[in-house]
Amino acid sequence: MQQDRIPASTARSSHVPSTGVARFLAACRHEQPDATPIWFMRQAGRSSQGYHELREKYDVLTLIKTPELCTRMTMMPVESFGVDGAVLYADIMLPLEGMGIDFELRTEGPVIHNPIRSAQDVEALRLMNIQESVPYILEALRLVRRELEGKQAVIGVTGGPFTLACYMIEGKPSRDYATAKALMYSQPDLWHALMEKVTDVVTEYALAQISAGADVIQIFESWIGTLGPSAYRRFVLPYTQRIFAAIKQTGAPAIHFGTGAASLLESMAEAGGDVISVDWRVELDTAWERIGLERGIQGNLDPTLLLTSWPVVEAGMQDVLRRAANRPGHIFNLGHGIPMAADPDLLRRLVEAVHETTKR
Amino acid sequence: MQQDRIPASTARSSHVPSTGVARFLAACRHEQPDATPIWFMRQAGRSSQGYHELREKYDVLTLIKTPELCTRMTMMPVESFGVDGAVLYADIMLPLEGMGIDFELRTEGPVIHNPIRSAQDVEALRLMNIQESVPYILEALRLVRRELEGKQAVIGVTGGPFTLACYMIEGKPSRDYATAKALMYSQPDLWHALMEKVTDVVTEYALAQISAGADVIQIFESWIGTLGPSAYRRFVLPYTQRIFAAIKQTGAPAIHFGTGAASLLESMAEAGGDVISVDWRVELDTAWERIGLERGIQGNLDPTLLLTSWPVVEAGMQDVLRRAANRPGHIFNLGHGIPMAADPDLLRRLVEAVHETTKR
Repeated sequence: MQQDRIPASTARSSHVPSTGVARFLAACRHEQPDATPIWFMRQAGRSSQGYHELREKYDVLTLIKTPELCTRMTMMPVESFGVDGAVLYADIMLPLEGMGIDFELRTEGPVIHNPIRSAQDVEALRLMNIQESVPYILEALRLVRRELEGKQAVIGVTGGPFTLACYMIEGKPSRDYATAKALMYSQPDLWHALMEKVTDVVTEYALAQISAGADVIQIFESWIGTLGPSAYRRFVLPYTQRIFAAIKQTGAPAIHFGTGAASLLESMAEAGGDVISVDWRVELDTAWERIGLERGIQGNLDPTLLLTSWPVVEAGMQDVLRRAANRPGHIFNLGHGIPMAADPDLLRRLVEAVHETTKR
Repeated sequence: MQQDRIPASTARSSHVPSTGVARFLAACRHEQPDATPIWFMRQAGRSSQGYHELREKYDVLTLIKTPELCTRMTMMPVESFGVDGAVLYADIMLPLEGMGIDFELRTEGPVIHNPIRSAQDVEALRLMNIQESVPYILEALRLVRRELEGKQAVIGVTGGPFTLACYMIEGKPSRDYATAKALMYSQPDLWHALMEKVTDVVTEYALAQISAGADVIQIFESWIGTLGPSAYRRFVLPYTQRIFAAIKQTGAPAIHFGTGAASLLESMAEAGGDVISVDWRVELDTAWERIGLERGIQGNLDPTLLLTSWPVVEAGMQDVLRRAANRPGHIFNLGHGIPMAADPDLLRRLVEAVHETTKR
């Protein structure tokens, strides 16, 4: 379904032309791109030129829900940093609005006014039509795709089912998601009923993004690291597996992201994803061996390095690249999102240096 | 040095008498106790009967710094839950006061008014005499030891050098300790100078606690999970190693605790500790194989289970015990501290059930 975007003959040769999208998709397909592709989680709306200007005029939800403004926010880091992919300026909570979840986005994270605590709450959740609930996201994706002119990859994103369920139950950001996990452990039927619904929505949302022009989808399981392997396999894996299976049918590649998930890597790989995104708490080479070298890997510079200086960032980059060992299937990224206080100049230099160092 | 507390003949037989201290120390020495010892991190000052009564009358620092009150707080969980060890009602920040660190203890954690940010700040840190800076802790330890009458183990505690350095630099609790880590990466000389001083203080503090009557020392490296293995080995391991080596010389066993440290287990074991304390993010059997079966292990029930009901807690306990497989060297504990809202009755039943199930 997506293959028509790169001529098959090129996509299958060992060296593909040097556009960001070709580079990005080659890595996803475990082919050798002309250089290692790079992008940054939370690149939209952090550190870009012009970001603060727009944020002074509009609140976050207006920026997200106005396709032209959202497109502007999304394009900024592509222009400022030279990354190989554009990721939508959006929030993982958005598709939950159509389910009847009433939230607001605060600096510290989403706060939900009607958290899920009972079987009735789960029952009351609507299964919305994504085209109707987030038309602005799909429209922004189309606009971004047009503006990129096939030069960079369009990266669609969605929260993973565990992370969304955690927010829905907990009602606010948390260090340990104790309320959500206590409900998961003590009322497994309720948990599974919720996960069924969330999985349907996430699947529909991912497929709609692909139809609207996303070249690749990243599933953010940001809080998965609060679980151990048994709990993950029992309460999450079957749902994530279903989402990745549905994406696979479209032909678009998928990236599976988790943080603090050092003990879950094999299980996450089993759940799915052409590329597994790992954080800096594991060494990239060790992680790659554990998920299997036939799979792609994304990561994994410690974002904290962006608060230092270029020689320190460069040393960190060299270490990541040394561990990636020039194998096909590596997408360079941070282990998690760009810190608020990151120096934009370091981001620019990092993109340039990764491309330069890995030129093949 | 500590061995004289249990007759050598008993300690070396395969079954030792059923006091908490014998049970606890047998596990630390990798001998088979009559039942698996159990205690809870943060057992003092959470969920115990009488806790709220004392907290209404006194603020936290008064409770900690008045040996009789501190002893009361420390003894409560021993009486309420029947645990095999008493851990002092204290805070890991206390020994830093003598260094010139000005902090206050808030609900969310310690806030430091003069955080460390420069070489001058590190230079200005005093190397205090522990006997003079925390006489109240050492006095409380003596009182607790007397009250326990040799029935339960006295567990001395200290923050690990990384965790203390993080607080000292960051100045407040944080999810990622970005300021501390950025300084560590960008000013390694400053970092190492700070770690030298903190290591000296932690070592002196641990040894003073052993002299005052602690049967065992636990080093809390609560935030170590913000590092990957290379950073850990470069910036932390040599210091932790020095502390454990000094404790070993006294003959008292030591427990090495970390959270979110799934990728660091081998390195933490290399740094030291007769027992490695693991959280619920790794399975106990996998973790034990990784640190080496000749070493003891502590853990690792998900504390979130204490917010559920007995059948759920019991299932979790059975899973931990099944993975411990009746091997010598297991100390039952949670993966991290008791949650504020934990049901005390569950704690009581858990202690009873662990003793009952593992009776040998």
